[in-house]
Amino acid sequence: MGMFTKDIKSMDDMLTHGLQDIYYAEQQITKALPKMIDKATNRDLATGLKNHLEETNKQIERLNQVFKKLGMAPKGTDCPAIDGIIKEADETAGEIDDKSVLDAAIVANAQAVEHYEIARYGTLIAWAEELGHDDIVRLLTTNLNEEHAANTKLNTVAMRKGVNRKAAS
Amino acid sequence: MGMFTKDIKSMDDMLTHGLQDIYYAEQQITKALPKMIDKATNRDLATGLKNHLEETNKQIERLNQVFKKLGMAPKGTDCPAIDGIIKEADETAGEIDDKSVLDAAIVANAQAVEHYEIARYGTLIAWAEELGHDDIVRLLTTNLNEEHAANTKLNTVAMRKGVNRKAAS
Repeated sequence: MGMFTKDIKSMDDMLTHGLQDIYYAEQQITKALPKMIDKATNRDLATGLKNHLEETNKQIERLNQVFKKLGMAPKGTDCPAIDGIIKEADETAGEIDDKSVLDAAIVANAQAVEHYEIARYGTLIAWAEELGHDDIVRLLTTNLNEEHAANTKLNTVAMRKGVNRKAAS
Repeated sequence: MGMFTKDIKSMDDMLTHGLQDIYYAEQQITKALPKMIDKATNRDLATGLKNHLEETNKQIERLNQVFKKLGMAPKGTDCPAIDGIIKEADETAGEIDDKSVLDAAIVANAQAVEHYEIARYGTLIAWAEELGHDDIVRLLTTNLNEEHAANTKLNTVAMRKGVNRKAAS
């Protein structure tokens, strides 16, 4: 985006910008998840994050298809939001020694990532529908549904698979 | 937080850190919302954001009570996540000239903020419950419910009050 020009002139431009934002975000997430997996001790947590890393790679593939359907080359754009969320996750993890407490922190930080994606995909779907790009709505909805499911699994890991209980003991 | 020490030693420390994080975030949001209100053209959007600014001030009051119940002075800590989300909102808004497109962007950015808060309050409530701090769960749940309601209202503004339709026309 230019520094001195108003580059977003239409809703279509804004959809493109939003897609580039989530494209960059998903790529940063594929770099952040392996670090979280390395630090995780709870087996359910580590497995869940590994599955979500595979899903994230497929989501990037779906975004490639979205760009193609819109006649554009896939491209990312700076996303200070996901950079901030990941920076905070790294900083907090760096402050924790106890492995059980760290597991609870990893769940929380992964959920912050999921919620960011849920917000963005929800918006992108609404914009694509409004603009009549029905062909990309299905792809974006698949990604959104996976983020919702990943967030629900993290709730289960925290509350029913004992991550929070162990961290508090 | 110290740069070279592991300052989060227990789940209680992590709860404190999380409360300081959201305390700082809520304060940044009280600074960001007036800018969004100034830029908003759609009346339902501007009114919704104004109401949420009042709610946010009450949420900070509730967090003051939370700190008090835990025997701590209210205090914020750096939160790169909310800083990044707000920075992205400012940058995107700066790229848009058309007032209708800008309204749709403001809705999207306000929803990214709401989702961050929904993630954090959800986590804080789960941690407080696990630690037996039942006295603060009610206060945090009130804040969480308000964030959910604010997000739902933004959906309504975007999709039923015509913000997205006008932006796309």
